[in-house]
Amino acid sequence: MLNKVVIFGVGLIGGSFARALKQAGAVKHIVGVDRSEAFLSRALELGIIDSAAQPGKPVSDPQGQTPASRRRVSVSDPAGQTPVCRFEEAITGADLVLLAAPVAQTGRILAAILPHLDAHTIVTDAGSTKCDVVAAARAALGERAAQFVPGHPIAGRETNGPDAAIADLYHGKKTVLTPLPENAPQDIERVAQAWRACGAIIHTLTPEEHDRVFAAVSHLPHLLAYALVDDVASKPHSGLLFQYAASGFRDFTRIAGSSPEMWRDISLANQAALLTELDAYLAQLTRLRASLAAGDAAALEAVYSNAQRARRQWIETIEAAEPPQPKDAAAE
Amino acid sequence: MLNKVVIFGVGLIGGSFARALKQAGAVKHIVGVDRSEAFLSRALELGIIDSAAQPGKPVSDPQGQTPASRRRVSVSDPAGQTPVCRFEEAITGADLVLLAAPVAQTGRILAAILPHLDAHTIVTDAGSTKCDVVAAARAALGERAAQFVPGHPIAGRETNGPDAAIADLYHGKKTVLTPLPENAPQDIERVAQAWRACGAIIHTLTPEEHDRVFAAVSHLPHLLAYALVDDVASKPHSGLLFQYAASGFRDFTRIAGSSPEMWRDISLANQAALLTELDAYLAQLTRLRASLAAGDAAALEAVYSNAQRARRQWIETIEAAEPPQPKDAAAE
Repeated sequence: MLNKVVIFGVGLIGGSFARALKQAGAVKHIVGVDRSEAFLSRALELGIIDSAAQPGKPVSDPQGQTPASRRRVSVSDPAGQTPVCRFEEAITGADLVLLAAPVAQTGRILAAILPHLDAHTIVTDAGSTKCDVVAAARAALGERAAQFVPGHPIAGRETNGPDAAIADLYHGKKTVLTPLPENAPQDIERVAQAWRACGAIIHTLTPEEHDRVFAAVSHLPHLLAYALVDDVASKPHSGLLFQYAASGFRDFTRIAGSSPEMWRDISLANQAALLTELDAYLAQLTRLRASLAAGDAAALEAVYSNAQRARRQWIETIEAAEPPQPKDAAAE
Repeated sequence: MLNKVVIFGVGLIGGSFARALKQAGAVKHIVGVDRSEAFLSRALELGIIDSAAQPGKPVSDPQGQTPASRRRVSVSDPAGQTPVCRFEEAITGADLVLLAAPVAQTGRILAAILPHLDAHTIVTDAGSTKCDVVAAARAALGERAAQFVPGHPIAGRETNGPDAAIADLYHGKKTVLTPLPENAPQDIERVAQAWRACGAIIHTLTPEEHDRVFAAVSHLPHLLAYALVDDVASKPHSGLLFQYAASGFRDFTRIAGSSPEMWRDISLANQAALLTELDAYLAQLTRLRASLAAGDAAALEAVYSNAQRARRQWIETIEAAEPPQPKDAAAE
């Protein structure tokens, strides 16, 4: 049982973590921290979090006025009490802190946490890239980086915000931990246990392995889907094209419905590995183009057949071991 | 009401057309023609067709033996009668013939039909490419090409065969007709009415427009999805990669589960338009690669944002007008 969990970012990822921990009875108190007052207010309203704080904002300002953040957040407190706490109070005494904010904010958040970080507190994250997060953590936390256990839950939906948060988002899904050499085994285990309480299956990779793998199976497909929709949308007859786009196009491009800002950051955070995968794919497309131009039916069929076979085998042997994903399960 | 409809290919596309016409009470008798005895037998068993014929096969052979096709097909006749007819009988007197066999067979099938083709019979097809089908029809039918009205229902599922056929496959979906200049308006209307009876919405394009549009929104995405799965499967660490592929990868590559033979034929049949689209996409990817390599966040975000916006608009304005597609709706 965790006494106090602090979650930075009370949207889909952080909110679902909170809901899952609560449903499992694995936590006593959850503090939400978010730049968005509306998100905090809504997360309190929905019972996702028990109290709220804003990053680096004092609860009352030097002029003695009640700041807008406090007023707005407390309005939505069903018990009539003020569930808003100071940022330093939010962090102090936490068993676990989860960063579920955009990865580009990792360094800033960790630097803000550091002055209030108890020796027993473990910090983890839910970022889609790991090498850059590890570098940011080392830079921000210095010798206390041992308290940071990097992680990445492989789950998502196309919707976002506290209203999108669901208790079973992580159920049967993988959470990849990429521990640092200086992490204590019991600290890694505390993070793993929290994710297991959410129903996740724990996998372990190095940050480098993680980033290479996800460049290939997640970051590249996102880039390709965005590229195709932008390509179609930029043509003079795009209206005609979209009129006849059907379910194949819809599913192929579903991930292009994901947050452009988030995927811009992921693309740049994992630049080297993504370039490697993109170059391999461009080489593959160039070969396929030559086969098509030459009318080489056998070469085309070899690629298509191998792909169909590999995909079928993947679906059968790997997905069969997992429960069905929610219909709108999306960007991981 | 159509008295007699002949369907070449009693799998998903032809079988669903048959089921939909029957459900609408728009046809008296359906003859199925298929190279596969098992498909014919099963289509009879399921009540998709009322009688069966095999292309170019006589019902009894010169040695006076009952051929296997007749035995097998008649076994499954629930009424105890033999619902197998001669190929020429199958064609004679038909109001409508639908070719729902692979497009590469169009010429051969039309040549086999021609000697038995009544003056009032209209032939149509369900092929995913149209310029090659029109060329094959002109070559096979000569001056009787006016009896051929080319078409393409924009619907599908990943499964195939008579068991995959469903009455509502075309409900609310588009069927694109690409009439020939010599088609009589009432002949085009007969084909349109049959599809409307299946619940489809009729659109009209020239064969060239059709092939350009579907190269962009269907044929290219298929090629890209096959290329990605083959690329991932060909890497030495493909096992590790597939282990972490999740729902984004699954949906992006769903169309790579489609028939490799069918898509090889479509790729080659629409070679010129597909090459044009592939080249535009390669140019787009090359620009995006340069932005990524330069760390140009604004350029990446511009492409990603434009794609997200265009896709959202498409989903809202165009798909909203259509009923939800079946969950496994696939290759169109």
